[in-house]
Amino acid sequence: MKHTYAGAGVNINAADRTKARLKDIVRTTFRPEVMTDIGHFGGMFRVPEGFKQPVLVSSVDGVGTKLKVAAAFGRFDTVGQDLVNHCVNDILCCGALPLFFLDYIAMGRLVPERVEVLVQGLATACKAQNCALVGGETAEMPGIYRGDDFDLAGTIIGVVEQGSILDGRSILPGDAVFGLSSSGLHTNGFSLARKVLARVPLDRHVPQLGTTLGDALLQIHCCYLPALKPALPLLKGLAHLTGGGFEGNIPRVLPDGTAVRLQRGSWPVPQIFRLIQEKGKVDESEMYRVFNMGIGMVAICAAKRADELLAKVPEARRIGEVVQAGEKGKPRVIFD
Amino acid sequence: MKHTYAGAGVNINAADRTKARLKDIVRTTFRPEVMTDIGHFGGMFRVPEGFKQPVLVSSVDGVGTKLKVAAAFGRFDTVGQDLVNHCVNDILCCGALPLFFLDYIAMGRLVPERVEVLVQGLATACKAQNCALVGGETAEMPGIYRGDDFDLAGTIIGVVEQGSILDGRSILPGDAVFGLSSSGLHTNGFSLARKVLARVPLDRHVPQLGTTLGDALLQIHCCYLPALKPALPLLKGLAHLTGGGFEGNIPRVLPDGTAVRLQRGSWPVPQIFRLIQEKGKVDESEMYRVFNMGIGMVAICAAKRADELLAKVPEARRIGEVVQAGEKGKPRVIFD
Repeated sequence: MKHTYAGAGVNINAADRTKARLKDIVRTTFRPEVMTDIGHFGGMFRVPEGFKQPVLVSSVDGVGTKLKVAAAFGRFDTVGQDLVNHCVNDILCCGALPLFFLDYIAMGRLVPERVEVLVQGLATACKAQNCALVGGETAEMPGIYRGDDFDLAGTIIGVVEQGSILDGRSILPGDAVFGLSSSGLHTNGFSLARKVLARVPLDRHVPQLGTTLGDALLQIHCCYLPALKPALPLLKGLAHLTGGGFEGNIPRVLPDGTAVRLQRGSWPVPQIFRLIQEKGKVDESEMYRVFNMGIGMVAICAAKRADELLAKVPEARRIGEVVQAGEKGKPRVIFD
Repeated sequence: MKHTYAGAGVNINAADRTKARLKDIVRTTFRPEVMTDIGHFGGMFRVPEGFKQPVLVSSVDGVGTKLKVAAAFGRFDTVGQDLVNHCVNDILCCGALPLFFLDYIAMGRLVPERVEVLVQGLATACKAQNCALVGGETAEMPGIYRGDDFDLAGTIIGVVEQGSILDGRSILPGDAVFGLSSSGLHTNGFSLARKVLARVPLDRHVPQLGTTLGDALLQIHCCYLPALKPALPLLKGLAHLTGGGFEGNIPRVLPDGTAVRLQRGSWPVPQIFRLIQEKGKVDESEMYRVFNMGIGMVAICAAKRADELLAKVPEARRIGEVVQAGEKGKPRVIFD
């Protein structure tokens, strides 16, 4: 038998056609610092001027098994936005603004139209946050990904002035803790959500949710950059509530000896979380360890600047305060 | 039935233990510009000083289905090196030197020991090329990856002085073309190789190869930075022979109106390629379109500087020259 590369499941021509389609899409995201089209061996981006000591802040993320829900529901234009927004939020926690992004898409069989829709999602979110999509890899991996399965990951590079890095070091007992609403699960907790809700069809309208289950689960991960950018100079710390929920993320920005005390009930918990909790009989504490429970980003500032913060970020909601960590001293989250 | 996150296939405690093990490994790669340990929301890296106009050069890649061979052969310490070296070579084609790297590892079930070996491979190659491993995402995705299947991708960020960017623009007919030997398949063509060689056990010693099939296939992707760094000022263009082989990669750095004429036979083709070709009855032209056939990197310089290049890069081998592209004018590769 005679083999060709295409016969072994990898189609170089399809890959070439895909690249051509993507070129026009990614070009919409370019900023003046971008020096290349895609196609050369690396994406080129001039370090922006005007910084005394620029620090590059980078983060890599995936979308997790939210991809399985997207595939099952046949909606591929939103997961790219989830991914970019997730990454933008992560570097925002260091005080950084986005510069550029690179994506990785892997499938069992390359479907150019599918890749195009995924990249369109990435480009939409990149453009909205002034982030250039300078590179990407589309890998065709027969034997690893089956059927419609695929993976989508990405890396963001941003920049912050060294003197403006947000690292939580100045956080003190008495500081005010604010929360910004999430749009739903964002990109975390899907393995549990999928297991618990496996028997509910994604296209079924769920009265408790006011929408279909698929629509509720695929709500796009919020990007907090537009809301928080004007308030960055006021802030002492930001924590993006991703995998690990409250306890897994807030302590990452707390200095030793401090803890955060949150008033449960000071914000509304979206119905999608209640649905998961009820259907799965999940402990309340486990819910707060896995999910964001309606708070996608936590912002901390001095109590005396709280009014100023609320004036600049009217969507922020006061949900607690910084306290002393007590005897053990390890940063943690205490729920009232 | 009561659900916990661990019961749904995602183990946050295992993820935490893994992070702790990785911390010590990645720290060995840190350069003075690195400003954070892992754990915060982004990796921080000071833009190096001493550049007039620094340009960031980035690239994202995966390892492709070489991962399937690694998993089947039970060898997980080399694919990380493949990935980093691949990325280093890509940005080297723009004249850039590495700054930092971020990885993405996805598995069906998180096995901390497995992740540790993979990251050790990444760190080994990063350290060798003075590239800091500043971030990584380890995603546990039950339902997408089955059994021992996993995926590994990474993004590199490097820097080049704007005036020293290597873009092939000055390449002219008459220029000399050099090749640097590959160590084997590097990270391309594995879907075809696996299909053709499916019946040969990986642990079988193959006399034609002088080693086991597994050892031959898993030879680590060469890194050409140490060899080529001293010669960068002499070069007009570099092409890394990855997916698409000669025709897919060399034209990426050629200006319109030029072509590269290569003398087949001017370099030895490693036996692994002959084995694949014979077993699969693959056309010679298809072989050169899919595989690197023994040349991992192509370097182009002015003919009058060829001796100087050979003095600085003794392992380079003259394999052809730049010619006029002829009537159609599209950059291409012509084999004698």
